[in-house]
Amino acid sequence: MADKVLIYSRFPKSMMTRFAERFELLDTGGKPPREVFPAEELGGIRALLTAGGSPFGAEAMDLFPKLGAIVCYGTGYDGVDLKAAAARNIAVGHSPGANAASVADIAMTLMLATTRRILVADQYVRSGDWAASKQSPMMRPQAGMPGRRIGVYGMGEIGRKIAARCVAFESEVGYYSRTKYDLPYQYFPSLEALADWCSVLMIAVRAGAETQHVVNADILRRIGADGYVVNISRGSVVDEKALVAALTDKTIAGAGLDVFEKEPHAPDALTALPNVVFAPHIGGHTLDSHVAMQNCVLANLAAFFEGKPLPYAVKSA
Amino acid sequence: MADKVLIYSRFPKSMMTRFAERFELLDTGGKPPREVFPAEELGGIRALLTAGGSPFGAEAMDLFPKLGAIVCYGTGYDGVDLKAAAARNIAVGHSPGANAASVADIAMTLMLATTRRILVADQYVRSGDWAASKQSPMMRPQAGMPGRRIGVYGMGEIGRKIAARCVAFESEVGYYSRTKYDLPYQYFPSLEALADWCSVLMIAVRAGAETQHVVNADILRRIGADGYVVNISRGSVVDEKALVAALTDKTIAGAGLDVFEKEPHAPDALTALPNVVFAPHIGGHTLDSHVAMQNCVLANLAAFFEGKPLPYAVKSA
Repeated sequence: MADKVLIYSRFPKSMMTRFAERFELLDTGGKPPREVFPAEELGGIRALLTAGGSPFGAEAMDLFPKLGAIVCYGTGYDGVDLKAAAARNIAVGHSPGANAASVADIAMTLMLATTRRILVADQYVRSGDWAASKQSPMMRPQAGMPGRRIGVYGMGEIGRKIAARCVAFESEVGYYSRTKYDLPYQYFPSLEALADWCSVLMIAVRAGAETQHVVNADILRRIGADGYVVNISRGSVVDEKALVAALTDKTIAGAGLDVFEKEPHAPDALTALPNVVFAPHIGGHTLDSHVAMQNCVLANLAAFFEGKPLPYAVKSA
Repeated sequence: MADKVLIYSRFPKSMMTRFAERFELLDTGGKPPREVFPAEELGGIRALLTAGGSPFGAEAMDLFPKLGAIVCYGTGYDGVDLKAAAARNIAVGHSPGANAASVADIAMTLMLATTRRILVADQYVRSGDWAASKQSPMMRPQAGMPGRRIGVYGMGEIGRKIAARCVAFESEVGYYSRTKYDLPYQYFPSLEALADWCSVLMIAVRAGAETQHVVNADILRRIGADGYVVNISRGSVVDEKALVAALTDKTIAGAGLDVFEKEPHAPDALTALPNVVFAPHIGGHTLDSHVAMQNCVLANLAAFFEGKPLPYAVKSA
């Protein structure tokens, strides 16, 4: 009999096919488990798969008295209450680094699309305004990449890949993270100092309680009127209200956003802005990174059911 | 009395301000010069500024019997009949390399925006379809950059900068150009062989009679259904009708286009397609590259009026 895995978040059906070859899946489709499955079935669940950003606290854990493993799809695990898991002897796994290149690439895509105003440019051609020689203030030349100061906030695998890409664009790279690494980029001792220096702030920090709303009105003011924010980490890192205000009153020039405070919702005041490029949390959304993340999930689940430690365990869990 | 310079193409007024500090400008705004200025005024013109891609042949030259210098704004000079200029002892200048980084960056922007489907992604968020959990076939995960085979057609300054950027994205780079260089990229002896190998064809070749429509239906078929074309060179290099057909019947997956056969017009059949990202020939359109190109123009004009050779002369002229 195949081991049972509860699918706690909503994942595309196509993605579940591969897991279903190996495990018996109880798929909630993202609905509260009790609405979908009887309590006795939930009582037998020993492992579940969740999106790392979805809230999963003590109360949710206690729905599954036999739970031994929470496996997060993706790098993040900020939705999981690690203390509550540890107190219940529940192992927590994730997919470290499997999507780092894919996420770094969406960061670059959003930065370039925003600074070169590609949405406006595309519309300028499609609408016929170009053919009609209509003026477009949004089409005025902007600063290019050579010499641009890119501030990377967070120097994990994704931050490093962003930095390496930016150097190839002849940009200057600076970073702030809790730790100073032996890396060929200028280190700033605070997010404030990095924001003062840079013209693009790339948010690549791991999300958590200590990074909640750290990119606030003050940081945005420091980035300044020629500056941009790109967030591919988690919506929680940015004070979204302050960001909307800064984009509306031109405190900053623009933003590229793959993540939002309350996904899949982005506030109307934000989505109405012309100086933002949006993506629906597709940072890790490439064929290669999905395969790599699935490999981590399968390895974590297989090890757990064999009674072994998770090969991709969350370090602090 | 300031030296007179005829402005043959249509340039933004803001761009002319700097030249007007030094020279007396006769600005046609892109209209036929005879419609704007009396013949005797044109007869005295010794130097003119033109967009390198605009047709400027023997007949046009003969409007200006005293013409001694044709200065192209930008790298390209494919619109200028170099033989006709040489026969009339007219020097031809351009701005070599001044916009190479800016053009390479628009190539990268178009490739990333097209392969990661950023127009669809942005609209998916803005429309509320994401919040409503609506399915979108265009949002299916695509191949990412690591391991992607990028074929660079043309290995001048722009091609080299594109290649260097692609390597930072962990992609494989191959190239075809008339000359094989000592570069760490795989060389292909023909455009056909490059097209067979690559999944993105980056067109960075210098335009001219010998490259007219070389990217044709056969080349597009070789790039294949998972493949993309990015053109930041000149529209003339691509058979635009064949491209429209290939994009419509999914012979290739998509395209990113900064240049077109008959600018500023892009065919309706092309601009109606969802799998293309368009830009209105803004490759060299950044503040830094404009300054660098203007420096070349000023140096060329100053040297000419001092009776010296153009410092940025077209080599074959």
